[in-house]
Amino acid sequence: MATSLLLNCDMGEQFGAWPCGQDEALIALVDQANLACGFHAGDFSTMAAGVARAKAHGVMIGAHPGYPDLQGFGRRAMAFTPREVTELMLYQIGALDAFCRAQGTEVAYVKPHGALYNAIADDDALLDAALTACARYRSGLALMTLARADHDADAVRQRAEIAGVPVLFEAFADRRYLPNGRLTSRQRPDAVLHDVNTMIAQATAIAAGEPFATADGGMLRLRADSLCVHGDTPEALAALTALRCALQEPV
Amino acid sequence: MATSLLLNCDMGEQFGAWPCGQDEALIALVDQANLACGFHAGDFSTMAAGVARAKAHGVMIGAHPGYPDLQGFGRRAMAFTPREVTELMLYQIGALDAFCRAQGTEVAYVKPHGALYNAIADDDALLDAALTACARYRSGLALMTLARADHDADAVRQRAEIAGVPVLFEAFADRRYLPNGRLTSRQRPDAVLHDVNTMIAQATAIAAGEPFATADGGMLRLRADSLCVHGDTPEALAALTALRCALQEPV
Amino acid sequence: MATSLLLNCDMGEQFGAWPCGQDEALIALVDQANLACGFHAGDFSTMAAGVARAKAHGVMIGAHPGYPDLQGFGRRAMAFTPREVTELMLYQIGALDAFCRAQGTEVAYVKPHGALYNAIADDDALLDAALTACARYRSGLALMTLARADHDADAVRQRAEIAGVPVLFEAFADRRYLPNGRLTSRQRPDAVLHDVNTMIAQATAIAAGEPFATADGGMLRLRADSLCVHGDTPEALAALTALRCALQEPV
Amino acid sequence: MATSLLLNCDMGEQFGAWPCGQDEALIALVDQANLACGFHAGDFSTMAAGVARAKAHGVMIGAHPGYPDLQGFGRRAMAFTPREVTELMLYQIGALDAFCRAQGTEVAYVKPHGALYNAIADDDALLDAALTACARYRSGLALMTLARADHDADAVRQRAEIAGVPVLFEAFADRRYLPNGRLTSRQRPDAVLHDVNTMIAQATAIAAGEPFATADGGMLRLRADSLCVHGDTPEALAALTALRCALQEPV
Repeated sequence: MATSLLLNCDMGEQFGAWPCGQDEALIALVDQANLACGFHAGDFSTMAAGVARAKAHGVMIGAHPGYPDLQGFGRRAMAFTPREVTELMLYQIGALDAFCRAQGTEVAYVKPHGALYNAIADDDALLDAALTACARYRSGLALMTLARADHDADAVRQRAEIAGVPVLFEAFADRRYLPNGRLTSRQRPDAVLHDVNTMIAQATAIAAGEPFATADGGMLRLRADSLCVHGDTPEALAALTALRCALQEPV
Repeated sequence: MATSLLLNCDMGEQFGAWPCGQDEALIALVDQANLACGFHAGDFSTMAAGVARAKAHGVMIGAHPGYPDLQGFGRRAMAFTPREVTELMLYQIGALDAFCRAQGTEVAYVKPHGALYNAIADDDALLDAALTACARYRSGLALMTLARADHDADAVRQRAEIAGVPVLFEAFADRRYLPNGRLTSRQRPDAVLHDVNTMIAQATAIAAGEPFATADGGMLRLRADSLCVHGDTPEALAALTALRCALQEPV
Repeated sequence: MATSLLLNCDMGEQFGAWPCGQDEALIALVDQANLACGFHAGDFSTMAAGVARAKAHGVMIGAHPGYPDLQGFGRRAMAFTPREVTELMLYQIGALDAFCRAQGTEVAYVKPHGALYNAIADDDALLDAALTACARYRSGLALMTLARADHDADAVRQRAEIAGVPVLFEAFADRRYLPNGRLTSRQRPDAVLHDVNTMIAQATAIAAGEPFATADGGMLRLRADSLCVHGDTPEALAALTALRCALQEPV
Repeated sequence: MATSLLLNCDMGEQFGAWPCGQDEALIALVDQANLACGFHAGDFSTMAAGVARAKAHGVMIGAHPGYPDLQGFGRRAMAFTPREVTELMLYQIGALDAFCRAQGTEVAYVKPHGALYNAIADDDALLDAALTACARYRSGLALMTLARADHDADAVRQRAEIAGVPVLFEAFADRRYLPNGRLTSRQRPDAVLHDVNTMIAQATAIAAGEPFATADGGMLRLRADSLCVHGDTPEALAALTALRCALQEPV
């Protein structure tokens, strides 16, 4: 049985003359490209190129909207109201979708970036604001958000259902989890997994719906639709390639 | 015979906490609202409100994209390539259209702003770039550009036809023209018309396809689809109201 | 006995083509002008003009640095580290001081703006960061911060002394206080004082070091060096004029 | 006879999370570091780090102000008035100097960046505007500008003398010149020199005040104070190291 867990990657995070990432190498390995929309990274030229690259590889295109904080790469918490969150997401989704339309494709889902992603995972009013942006933009447009332990995931599913928005849960192969389904803080030395076999074990467990080991020794079962991957170093690219193979193998 | 000359106005040019214009008063007097898209003015919240206001009054919504120069209000010439012009227009059209979609309407036409407007009027490669943005965004999306004397207008029409883009020619009631169909420079003391009767005479002549007096005494006939109006002072608002009445009267 | 309480006002908060405030009218009524430095408002041209205006009226010039959030006017909380706060303040102080130097004067004090002002009032690590910016920029450069009840003010004075930075405490004539020396939330209907006589009573009490009534009926004594005033409406300008007179009268 | 030709390099052109250049490697090889000031590149944190790095290596610090166009890296022509050029330069010089003051050093000279650099080389009104910024900021602050053939250089010197500003002429080791002292257009295939020996020959000729070969076969003698170098590739870094050695050898 081949897994149905997709691989997604943040891309198009160049800005003007500044390069970022290895999009050319990554695009061949992933199923979904989350493209920055100009607020935390990306610009009109980068976005046009990113859409063309994703389309050429048959990769699904996700809008990757962030806070308007280029200097902080959208990673700083900022106090936006739910209404503003809906509005700043609509703006960025539409901007990216223009390049999709111009190339005969469309934005397939929305994955908020950085501090906005975290805020939506922590605050139901902001989650609703994000769902509203998706619902209003186009019927069927999905929101990608952090996969959670069963009870929490049900609550998210319920809010999404009320909003009429499909939800895609995202898990991580290279981050260590807590037993409650949250990620360990990046402050902790063991927050990031470096061993490829451990990553593959965690990814295949998630893909199969099996429990895997967490930071505190307990086990966690996470249901996820997509796995977030990075490829910013040669090692990361090698790990991603191994992961790609492992997920395609019959279990 | 009632005129078919529409009235359009630049709106939504607030930014954040800074107000701009008298959109509430103007919206009741115009047919077309050109809404700023966040590069030279306007922001995600302003755009959401501007679309709601236009929709409530049954006013057509135009995207009003500009150069990315908030501090200069998009009025400074900037050296963009044709490709970049297509891209920066697509970005802004899509961003505004997101708010239209969210409110069950759509961007009906595109009127470039300030230095971008002027560049497109002066440079055929940039005109083609603007037409490309419209054509790629959506079939039937019109470009609004400066009305010109017959020969020049034909050349624009021809380029627009090749691109498959409807073109809307825009004339001015409160600016003095040169006999060749261009506007007098704002450096000249007589560049702006202040007398309401002169404005009405110029507007009704344009509406009827009749010649009117230019800066150098000669006569000019301009074919136009829309008349650009401003309402930034109490006097301007009164003039606009008079113009609105005059254009609705049978000739 | 004439009071030594100075009047300060936020000014230079135009940006590009967008006007803001009534600086021309206000400059004649105040002792200290807090000039925006380009991050939340103000730009290179506005700053040059603001320095010239303050100098022409013999008004002390304060740098008014804010968070880099033009669209939010620097009023949104943003998560900056103490080091970044020192750096973003240094940048803005230096930028404003360039216009002062060019006109033969200098920045006399620093008053942080909006969300940065609040963050510094609430977080000692950020207060220290702000003090560091002042101390490193120029020996003797003062920091203006929120006046507090005696105990809290002593703690601030102590930190400022360690940093070697003079501190200017700022109070408000048109805001209602809590008995603990903090301002009532703007959410409350009684947060802003509208009656001129009440403002004058509060201001003269502060100037004389006498207690005045707070929101909850209790009394508060605040020691302050400067009173923040606004003049954004005709009524506010009239109130400010009355306040100016009251503070100059012998008690 | 050791040469007195200094080596300068554009540095500090990171922005937020985006890296740029190889400042750590370059700083050991140059005499002057031109640090970006936040408009085309650089930010408050980058600038603090850049000043610290230059100071630690005993390298002179130059302000490197540009147009406010992050997305275009300050390389796009923009229509600023002379007054605005003075103002935007003052803003950036002061901002960088704040970090210098905080670290016990100071901005030693000003080298405009990109399109601003070119505009100043081509337009005397903008040259005067740049000189005014230097003169007003601090007596003795030098402006670095493009070295020119004798007659043109004399004209620049004269304007600088009137403004009371020292001028530093800058030449290029890796760009081919025209006989009139201007650089060949980057459109030409031979615009950039790739052979290290040719670069060294050109550099040592400039250092010695001797004529060297130009693009069209003619000879050119350029008097220069500083040589602009880049180190953005491993090859460039090797060439720069060879250049550094050659210029230190007795002729």
